[in-house]
Amino acid sequence: MHNEFMQRAIALAMDNVRSGRGGPFGAVVVKDGAIIAEGANCVTAVNDPTAHAEIVAIRAACRALGTFQLTACDIYTSCEPCPMCLGAIYWARPAHVFFAATAADAAAAGFDDSFIYEQLPLPTEQRKIPMMPLMREQALAAFRAWLDTPGKIPY
Amino acid sequence: MHNEFMQRAIALAMDNVRSGRGGPFGAVVVKDGAIIAEGANCVTAVNDPTAHAEIVAIRAACRALGTFQLTACDIYTSCEPCPMCLGAIYWARPAHVFFAATAADAAAAGFDDSFIYEQLPLPTEQRKIPMMPLMREQALAAFRAWLDTPGKIPY
Repeated sequence: MHNEFMQRAIALAMDNVRSGRGGPFGAVVVKDGAIIAEGANCVTAVNDPTAHAEIVAIRAACRALGTFQLTACDIYTSCEPCPMCLGAIYWARPAHVFFAATAADAAAAGFDDSFIYEQLPLPTEQRKIPMMPLMREQALAAFRAWLDTPGKIPY
Repeated sequence: MHNEFMQRAIALAMDNVRSGRGGPFGAVVVKDGAIIAEGANCVTAVNDPTAHAEIVAIRAACRALGTFQLTACDIYTSCEPCPMCLGAIYWARPAHVFFAATAADAAAAGFDDSFIYEQLPLPTEQRKIPMMPLMREQALAAFRAWLDTPGKIPY
């Protein structure tokens, strides 16, 4: 079954290029042996820089399941997730991830995946996009309010 | 102006907790000295694990601008971005990012930010969510098709 699901993710990637809709990336979410959601990169088609295949598929799967977690689901993606999508995967918490092409393959095709992986561990002040701290003390009040709130939904 | 924009991001975070809508996180996108989009965490409210404040604000800003890039925009976020949001920021390519609370503050309030930062540099086989390679050769065909496509929109 693994190869069948990955074959579908790769077909979504290929169709996305051929249709001119977006980049060469596709993903599917599987639960109980069946595909419950699919996604392909549509960053330029819908003007959304977060619309990578995995994010599109995760959001669609959560809509289908009516939940904000992908418990007991597997994700098959035609390419190793970029840092954004890897972060989304950790928040969605699927059981397993299968990937085909690598981040280095994506970089060789002109995508920033490897560059972003290099940027993340850097101290904020050394990153290519300048990141500056401001008003930390004031922001901590929101965390205190969160911790003091009874009956909140953790995520 | 910096403090005014951050104050708004923090107010969004605080309002989000008080209304019970979601976590203690808010963000705004600024262009030409004005806020063009706002976001607050609504992961549990809309069943979308990617609906962090920064992602919500980036998507709204791109909708407002009709573009998939935040060129010459600044992002003010009430907390240092998690890896997912930091990745989204690199793809959106704003000019600057200002953050208030730190990733460690978020971790102290019960959020996975620091854990995910620790996971990202690990080899795929050592990560807490198992990530397995599969069918790389087949997936490379989609990259070749992308590279061979004339007139494509890079992103």
